[in-house]
Amino acid sequence: MTKLFMFEKPVGMRDTLPELYQLKKQVRDAISEEVARWGYAPIETPTLEFSETIGAASAILDQQLFKLLDQEGNTLVLRPDMTAPIARIAASTLSTAERPLRLTYDAPVFRSQQREGGKSAEFEQIGVELIGDHSNSADGEIIALMMASLEKSGLENYQIAVGHLGFVNAFLLEVLGNESRVATFRRYLYEKNYVGFRKAVDQLALSSIDQRRLKNLLGLKGGTEVLEKANDIVESSEGKAALSQLYQLIDVLEAYNLSDKIIIDLNLVMHMSYYTGTVFEAYSEGLGYPLGSGGRYDELLAKFDHPEPATGFGLRLDRLTEALGKTKETIINDVCIIFSNERRKEAMEKATEFRQENRTVVMQDVTGVNNVDAYSAQFSEVIYLVGSNGNGGGAR
Amino acid sequence: MTKLFMFEKPVGMRDTLPELYQLKKQVRDAISEEVARWGYAPIETPTLEFSETIGAASAILDQQLFKLLDQEGNTLVLRPDMTAPIARIAASTLSTAERPLRLTYDAPVFRSQQREGGKSAEFEQIGVELIGDHSNSADGEIIALMMASLEKSGLENYQIAVGHLGFVNAFLLEVLGNESRVATFRRYLYEKNYVGFRKAVDQLALSSIDQRRLKNLLGLKGGTEVLEKANDIVESSEGKAALSQLYQLIDVLEAYNLSDKIIIDLNLVMHMSYYTGTVFEAYSEGLGYPLGSGGRYDELLAKFDHPEPATGFGLRLDRLTEALGKTKETIINDVCIIFSNERRKEAMEKATEFRQENRTVVMQDVTGVNNVDAYSAQFSEVIYLVGSNGNGGGAR
Repeated sequence: MTKLFMFEKPVGMRDTLPELYQLKKQVRDAISEEVARWGYAPIETPTLEFSETIGAASAILDQQLFKLLDQEGNTLVLRPDMTAPIARIAASTLSTAERPLRLTYDAPVFRSQQREGGKSAEFEQIGVELIGDHSNSADGEIIALMMASLEKSGLENYQIAVGHLGFVNAFLLEVLGNESRVATFRRYLYEKNYVGFRKAVDQLALSSIDQRRLKNLLGLKGGTEVLEKANDIVESSEGKAALSQLYQLIDVLEAYNLSDKIIIDLNLVMHMSYYTGTVFEAYSEGLGYPLGSGGRYDELLAKFDHPEPATGFGLRLDRLTEALGKTKETIINDVCIIFSNERRKEAMEKATEFRQENRTVVMQDVTGVNNVDAYSAQFSEVIYLVGSNGNGGGAR
Repeated sequence: MTKLFMFEKPVGMRDTLPELYQLKKQVRDAISEEVARWGYAPIETPTLEFSETIGAASAILDQQLFKLLDQEGNTLVLRPDMTAPIARIAASTLSTAERPLRLTYDAPVFRSQQREGGKSAEFEQIGVELIGDHSNSADGEIIALMMASLEKSGLENYQIAVGHLGFVNAFLLEVLGNESRVATFRRYLYEKNYVGFRKAVDQLALSSIDQRRLKNLLGLKGGTEVLEKANDIVESSEGKAALSQLYQLIDVLEAYNLSDKIIIDLNLVMHMSYYTGTVFEAYSEGLGYPLGSGGRYDELLAKFDHPEPATGFGLRLDRLTEALGKTKETIINDVCIIFSNERRKEAMEKATEFRQENRTVVMQDVTGVNNVDAYSAQFSEVIYLVGSNGNGGGAR
């Protein structure tokens, strides 16, 4: 094969070696157990889906989709998220299951990346979806479960930013008057480009009062006092209703004793276009990007002919293990039994005995290893069963 | 979106619902634990690889590869197996790690299918690779570990067919005289098309002795007596050497007390073209296709500029769960606490208490569920905390 490619992987693709794998597994298992204890049932969906359904419903930028053609000429995509596939199942196979439906997943998702960006094109996401419950309790449960998951994974310093897309949309619309302007300003918020936002405000033919109102939006981050300030600048009933939902959500989170890790961020706009109401992101100290996010998506299920409210979160396992600080302890191997053919049976019996005690045992034929000293240095205990009689070996 | 596609999945793609998921998870966990106890370290590789490396090295039929182009015009494939990606890592990142190297994986692999076939195009494979050990002990360990994995998964009735590609190749070559004829007859064996094999023998201009020798090959299945018979019909030193390896392998498996589940099958030819020596397949009673397979592939690492011997196995999790008989017990949910806003705090405390005892608790706001009776019928215990005082609810 060509030298150029021999050891290369496609852009954004990574291997996971044993040390990182073990850390990921610990985190994954801790979160899966917690999510199961809250009554979420695990499901899996295929890696490939039709572009017309999942590609469209996921609302990931088209150039971020990995696309291919099947043998019949249909366009397939590597799933860019898990929420749309789960909506597909909820609306079909599970359409008659009792609501609310609590589902969980743990799977890689795919987003094509530019070479320069250095971003992952494949990453493992663990998340939950709560389908068919419109109540604030559902939003509160999802945030509380994300926080419980982070804590079970061992993360201590983190914050949850909570916003409301319904508020952002209603407020921008009442000031700006039309959807296309709203989209422009929502994009600045999504990109956290506040300089661009302010410049665009100055260039609009708006009253100075409305210009001030728009700029005041950028200050709406902090404690519950933010909700009061927001109430002062918004006028539409949709905007007021969104704030009232946030008030109730904060009450729920206070009942969970979780409000000290929450900040309100009414500038929060999410990438995934299907969110409609409450949205949130989790941040860890010292990590420049969110560990995970979620929110309410009350209109996605309607795209699958099964309108019903829904909310959920997804955590990125790669970022979470990074935030946990990759305590890169070299894996200490337990026991190695180095044996020769004459004492194979004895070696097997010893290995079986140790394994029944849940110890890890490598059995190694002495003729299969080149450098016995270097090889055996990897183990905390090495037993030699070499030679034709009982005196030929022994524990080191 | 188009109605046609709304609930459809691409050919050969499946969802896994909670019941089957739980069964798969039990099997997966049992095997992973056993493999870890034998000292195999887990790794992960990306779903997408370059076609020039992994597509070529995997030697899956080209029309079975899922292919796509990346943004720079390189052809990518969805990995069709895990052995080639692990060989890539062994020859690069882990090239200086001590040998023998014991690695394990658990990952979906992809093979494009025809609509008519009804076969899975994506399936989860759990397997191991033992790299850098040429000894018969390594072959024996791999077979013994596959059998231990099957037993830990709960499977009782199974058999392992063991063959040797080196024998098949040497024998066919000494009778047929050239590689292209060998390939034709090897293909009949791979397809288990013994009628075609016999017909092709009759059409060849061979002595009646050689025709008989070829047909005798088809009878080489059974106990160790098969090795004697094989020794009678083979003449080349390569063929005799392969048989001698099989004799020694049987000795190793007898030491493991495993020989009663082994049958010798000198017709066994594997799909994956990289196998060179011992090959084997696992069969379960009543299942028409193998649960898994493996063998020695001493030439694959050389394709990555790092020649060294290697052996391994892969088990198909979908077939194994099918063989286990899918004891489709409906999942019994544990506790559900149905609460109203006034008693939220009490509900949370109760939920936390139960979860600390490792019980599964769904907390459900009564305003978020339409049909409380139907919903609560799914749980073995339902606690109502509804109404403004302690008398308003209680355990059902």
